[in-house]
Amino acid sequence: MATPLRGRDELDVPGLERLVEHLISGGISGLFILGTTGEGPSLSYRLRRELITYTGRFVRGRVKVLVGITDTAFVESVGIARHAAEAGADAVVLAPPYYIPEGQPELIEYLHHIVPELPVPVYLYNMPSLTKVVIEPDTVRRAMEDPRILGLKDSSGDMHYFNQLCSLLPQRPDWSLLIGKEELLAGATLAGGTGGVPGGANLFPRLYVALFEAAAKGDLSRAHILQGKVSEVADQLYRVGRHPSAFIKGIKCALSCTAICDDFMAEPFHRFLPPERNRIAESVSELSQTIDALLQVDPGGATT
Amino acid sequence: MATPLRGRDELDVPGLERLVEHLISGGISGLFILGTTGEGPSLSYRLRRELITYTGRFVRGRVKVLVGITDTAFVESVGIARHAAEAGADAVVLAPPYYIPEGQPELIEYLHHIVPELPVPVYLYNMPSLTKVVIEPDTVRRAMEDPRILGLKDSSGDMHYFNQLCSLLPQRPDWSLLIGKEELLAGATLAGGTGGVPGGANLFPRLYVALFEAAAKGDLSRAHILQGKVSEVADQLYRVGRHPSAFIKGIKCALSCTAICDDFMAEPFHRFLPPERNRIAESVSELSQTIDALLQVDPGGATT
Amino acid sequence: MATPLRGRDELDVPGLERLVEHLISGGISGLFILGTTGEGPSLSYRLRRELITYTGRFVRGRVKVLVGITDTAFVESVGIARHAAEAGADAVVLAPPYYIPEGQPELIEYLHHIVPELPVPVYLYNMPSLTKVVIEPDTVRRAMEDPRILGLKDSSGDMHYFNQLCSLLPQRPDWSLLIGKEELLAGATLAGGTGGVPGGANLFPRLYVALFEAAAKGDLSRAHILQGKVSEVADQLYRVGRHPSAFIKGIKCALSCTAICDDFMAEPFHRFLPPERNRIAESVSELSQTIDALLQVDPGGATT
Amino acid sequence: MATPLRGRDELDVPGLERLVEHLISGGISGLFILGTTGEGPSLSYRLRRELITYTGRFVRGRVKVLVGITDTAFVESVGIARHAAEAGADAVVLAPPYYIPEGQPELIEYLHHIVPELPVPVYLYNMPSLTKVVIEPDTVRRAMEDPRILGLKDSSGDMHYFNQLCSLLPQRPDWSLLIGKEELLAGATLAGGTGGVPGGANLFPRLYVALFEAAAKGDLSRAHILQGKVSEVADQLYRVGRHPSAFIKGIKCALSCTAICDDFMAEPFHRFLPPERNRIAESVSELSQTIDALLQVDPGGATT
Repeated sequence: MATPLRGRDELDVPGLERLVEHLISGGISGLFILGTTGEGPSLSYRLRRELITYTGRFVRGRVKVLVGITDTAFVESVGIARHAAEAGADAVVLAPPYYIPEGQPELIEYLHHIVPELPVPVYLYNMPSLTKVVIEPDTVRRAMEDPRILGLKDSSGDMHYFNQLCSLLPQRPDWSLLIGKEELLAGATLAGGTGGVPGGANLFPRLYVALFEAAAKGDLSRAHILQGKVSEVADQLYRVGRHPSAFIKGIKCALSCTAICDDFMAEPFHRFLPPERNRIAESVSELSQTIDALLQVDPGGATT
Repeated sequence: MATPLRGRDELDVPGLERLVEHLISGGISGLFILGTTGEGPSLSYRLRRELITYTGRFVRGRVKVLVGITDTAFVESVGIARHAAEAGADAVVLAPPYYIPEGQPELIEYLHHIVPELPVPVYLYNMPSLTKVVIEPDTVRRAMEDPRILGLKDSSGDMHYFNQLCSLLPQRPDWSLLIGKEELLAGATLAGGTGGVPGGANLFPRLYVALFEAAAKGDLSRAHILQGKVSEVADQLYRVGRHPSAFIKGIKCALSCTAICDDFMAEPFHRFLPPERNRIAESVSELSQTIDALLQVDPGGATT
Repeated sequence: MATPLRGRDELDVPGLERLVEHLISGGISGLFILGTTGEGPSLSYRLRRELITYTGRFVRGRVKVLVGITDTAFVESVGIARHAAEAGADAVVLAPPYYIPEGQPELIEYLHHIVPELPVPVYLYNMPSLTKVVIEPDTVRRAMEDPRILGLKDSSGDMHYFNQLCSLLPQRPDWSLLIGKEELLAGATLAGGTGGVPGGANLFPRLYVALFEAAAKGDLSRAHILQGKVSEVADQLYRVGRHPSAFIKGIKCALSCTAICDDFMAEPFHRFLPPERNRIAESVSELSQTIDALLQVDPGGATT
Repeated sequence: MATPLRGRDELDVPGLERLVEHLISGGISGLFILGTTGEGPSLSYRLRRELITYTGRFVRGRVKVLVGITDTAFVESVGIARHAAEAGADAVVLAPPYYIPEGQPELIEYLHHIVPELPVPVYLYNMPSLTKVVIEPDTVRRAMEDPRILGLKDSSGDMHYFNQLCSLLPQRPDWSLLIGKEELLAGATLAGGTGGVPGGANLFPRLYVALFEAAAKGDLSRAHILQGKVSEVADQLYRVGRHPSAFIKGIKCALSCTAICDDFMAEPFHRFLPPERNRIAESVSELSQTIDALLQVDPGGATT
């Protein structure tokens, strides 16, 4: 979930409420706040706590709430996790501390130390392009021995890695294996993945729910069509601008175009200027129409 | 400067005092705290503030104090800078926010926004292996237009880049251009660099001062000999263990072997176990003797 | 197809004949010689020509023969292609010249110049880990305008890239889109890929044919099981030894264990020593049994 | 040395003679042909042999001739080396085979096998950006045990690596340690390097000879000034165009602007079009004047 802001250290509270309602009414089964798309690391600790509190209040237990606690400082991760537990979060999400990259034995030791300090269960988060560390399959296998670790979100984009994790699932049939990169949602679900955490669901939650459901029940042709549309969303909204921040700028700009929330960005980044904004607005308008059309012809009708 | 710790969130205050005295008596002209070697990003904000306060108290204005404020969150960087200013720090040191990498225009805009918020002057910090972003020469050239920016520490290890920055110095003759990688200290100084920020100076400050002085006055043969010894320090103390954290572990272990301070590491890392510790202890003992011998034969005698 | 050798510049001709028969009787629909697994770039031009001639002679038109002509020198690529055409090859396979990496406009211009010089149709070969260049989707789209280019083999391992190419297929419904990385064969086929070029098919051709057929007809559960076995082949045979050459060494060693051909390697590489060979031999024996068992229970029976 | 061409597989023989004379009259002590700047890997074997023959004929023993024999195929490297020996070359230059990257033990074994097959002594060539392999210091140390290996050219741009090799020189005082990246020529020579192989010497050989001599005799201020000019050459001639091939295109274009030889490029690359050519022509004209001025004020006068 994106974090609606209206200033350098100020939450857009009404925007947050609208975004939560938009997502829940779109059929999603859980919210992940303070992740990469949520600009977690760019927010002050005060604002992170405020966001957690308000999100819990707006969600009112209707869907699960997962809170990102990844941090370079052990003590701060634990502090956020405690606040999340008090605010009623269901679980926390943890990537490796991302300044000096850890070796795998260091990572295993880190998990042994931090997981018992956390008052709620944990999902791991594999995001090597930003953390500089892969949580290798053998490390995941060892993490599965800890019942407080419930799953993993993989944003590596490496399907061979994802397949390797799928082959570990028999060891923990209760585990969640979630794909982060939405362009791979169909393939990951067909390979045995149990869900997705797609940034584009901020905008079109029903599309992503429908895609996951089609793939999960093996409806290949419908999964193929819906995946094509998801990839179109990514192409049109995430690649305006040349820098790695483009995908967050695109999502926040689109949320602003649809009057859900403000597009203020946490620094060091800034919202799109009018030329980029106009391109995004046009794309959103076109995509909304074609997505609505696609979802109405769903033969099962479950998500319309 | 390394950060002496005695527990997960506890400073080793007597160790800190001994380390500060060791460095000042070794002839260094300034201290940089909360950098990479100082485990800055791994420390809680509370502990970072405590370290700043104690360091200011122990230094008592005898040398300059520079404080690392690099952070993924703008507001937290500014907060640390304010605390540093109150504690009497001379300047702060700032690398690009290191979660999502910035494009150069984003980096320039970031500097335009943050520098005016800081109550003391700023040094930039180029550390692309950890921040994933190079502060490109053209960005440095534009930063030089701001009189509140006083210099740059380059830890890239890329001498071509360092030479390019040297060629910008006529634009700001007051600028400091400091090399981070100690294996390049002689070459960087001969090329026009104005100083170094070597991690090994925690252990053998006089060696690094002597090397810098030899190179700065063009004494090629002495610079060559001293650089050889500095590279030996790096080879023997920084490459025990296979992970990128090895160099900090080596420095803290060596500081503990010489009874300067505890070798507790901020998580996710941990101190060396006895086998590695024994190797470090032997190396420190040998190096101490050969370094003392080298420094005594300095013909000028200035540093003995 | 691996290249059976018995000396530094000497083909293992009887081994080649046995390998060709093994593959054809395993149900494969085409042979790709002088690729990466075939050690193409490591062979002298004389030996490459000899291999092409003998392969054509042994195949006798029963399956398609594709010949790798990738080279850093334009003139040599064309020379090999002419020899291949004379020997009856159906097509040639071309990756970007791999010493100095090309920009995409340079790559497009290169294709414009070389394709008309080639006497047979061409498949492109995307292998960025070794060529340092991705054939970007937009470059592929332009290559599709040339009817002499018939398809692409993708060995990038990047499923997002592969999906992007799948979405271009409506422009050229006759195109072949082949996946190189065998751990992704099921997913690539489900996503719309039209075939695979798996190194492990040298050993167990029926397994790879059965996997492709299961995925192509949408039999998810059987594709899943067979893909698991293919990944086991890769884990057990390609990761003995730590260097990138390990997968070729493993395949050649396994071919030697099954008495198909010699395991002599083109320099700079060398065959496995007894400890590694024993591990491979054990794995081959186990894998052969479990693969046979798997293929016999195929309900449709088509490939047994 | 660049390779003057006038067609896809045709040498510019008069251009080659002019270039050889230009270089020898510029004071260089040796020629390295068929390297990266010489487009070695892009040339047919026939043309490589022709170039070797003509170069030997034009040089007539006045300076040393080193011939690049790097190849992915062992047998072809040996073949070129034999031709070079017959043509009177003094040595050959060998980088690791550059398709599948070797591990260090594989590289050591490769040298053990190929060096005895070569009829002339060998220089190693470290060029990891193109070969994907670093010849690690420990591998160099072992290569120094072989008296047929006479030195190493380092084009990595990594001064820490170069310093490590310098520290090995006492083991083989006869060894040549040559820097490839001309922006680092002064620093490398001050650090103990024994020469350079700068691409820009094709154009302004006297400048590079003067820079090396100034650095070798410890004349820091003159080395600094000349290095500044060398870096200007690189900035103005090697970075026109965005692709890695830009530096060769710039050198060949500049050679053509000064009427030394044709600027035909071996494919997959092509000569600059008029807009880029005009920029290069202007730069060459300006640089020629300022370089002449610089060299005339040389107090020692040795190179004017």
